[in-house]
Amino acid sequence: MDSLMNLISTFDLASGRIAGGALEERHLSDLRGRFVDSAAYEQALQAGDALVYTVCGVERPPSEGQLNLALGRLFPGKIGDEYFMTKGHFHAWRPAAEVYLGLAGEGCLLLESEDGRAAQLVPLRTNAAVYVPGNTAHRTVNTGAVPLVYLGVYPAQAGHDYAAIAERNFRHVVVEQTGRPVMLPREQP
Amino acid sequence: MDSLMNLISTFDLASGRIAGGALEERHLSDLRGRFVDSAAYEQALQAGDALVYTVCGVERPPSEGQLNLALGRLFPGKIGDEYFMTKGHFHAWRPAAEVYLGLAGEGCLLLESEDGRAAQLVPLRTNAAVYVPGNTAHRTVNTGAVPLVYLGVYPAQAGHDYAAIAERNFRHVVVEQTGRPVMLPREQP
Repeated sequence: MDSLMNLISTFDLASGRIAGGALEERHLSDLRGRFVDSAAYEQALQAGDALVYTVCGVERPPSEGQLNLALGRLFPGKIGDEYFMTKGHFHAWRPAAEVYLGLAGEGCLLLESEDGRAAQLVPLRTNAAVYVPGNTAHRTVNTGAVPLVYLGVYPAQAGHDYAAIAERNFRHVVVEQTGRPVMLPREQP
Repeated sequence: MDSLMNLISTFDLASGRIAGGALEERHLSDLRGRFVDSAAYEQALQAGDALVYTVCGVERPPSEGQLNLALGRLFPGKIGDEYFMTKGHFHAWRPAAEVYLGLAGEGCLLLESEDGRAAQLVPLRTNAAVYVPGNTAHRTVNTGAVPLVYLGVYPAQAGHDYAAIAERNFRHVVVEQTGRPVMLPREQP
């Protein structure tokens, strides 16, 4: 059996670290082309390449039945009216679902079907789980004033496909309107 | 895509309920034969068939890549020196792992390999995950003074095998010694 150290994963909500996991950082410059207001994006980037989010994962060998963990910490902010968000991805192994658990802060998951037609904006809260079904693109959005911290649990075989979503982008955006987050089609008719 | 209601699972730590899930109750009488001190067990049972734990699950169709949730709430108590605990189980599909997250209270997971020779007592705490590898019997133990509340996330294909562990029981017990939980072999040499 694995040692105790390999079986316990303690999260530090402030640093976004899971004991034993590697912390990856995503800055504003890593999110080029994702935000709808590109003038606001360039302006924000000139002011400094802000840290937008971190991900710290504990990964197992990708064999059947194993599970991975990822602790996400997404900072508050906006580009124009659009909230700070993660790149978002599909799972490379499309049937893989993911369970997200809110640990701190206030935010949402933007979910889209493979063809981008069906979409849901799902609140991500403390003491609640959000189910991301298989075959679904998912992006986390911070709609609050403090870091949004959350844990994802997913099959170790899932893998990440960032390319599919980088190519077509999400078809919906999450923006602030009269002080509240709303989901709108990216292309305005 | 599923409706919003099917994608969000809100936990109520006090009642042990997940919105939309069915609550199962396990009383002392359901745990006959599990505790090492059978005289203390009969005496406790005569005093009343206490509620020992509840489990509330959200289950998906058992197809590849899907995940289930179970919220457990285990009450504090002891039978002799042995802490209140769950029946414990293997997954019917042995390779299936499970991630446990502590939400409230103080306790441990008792893990045993299929042959019962390798065992670990792993603390279950808030803001920490415990990884239960595949092929591993797991039982939750409340070592504190308040209800232990925790969430399990596991492959929807996992299933539960209670029979294997009912037949052989865990080979280790978790008892209080000088005020602290310790794991000991069930059969004293």
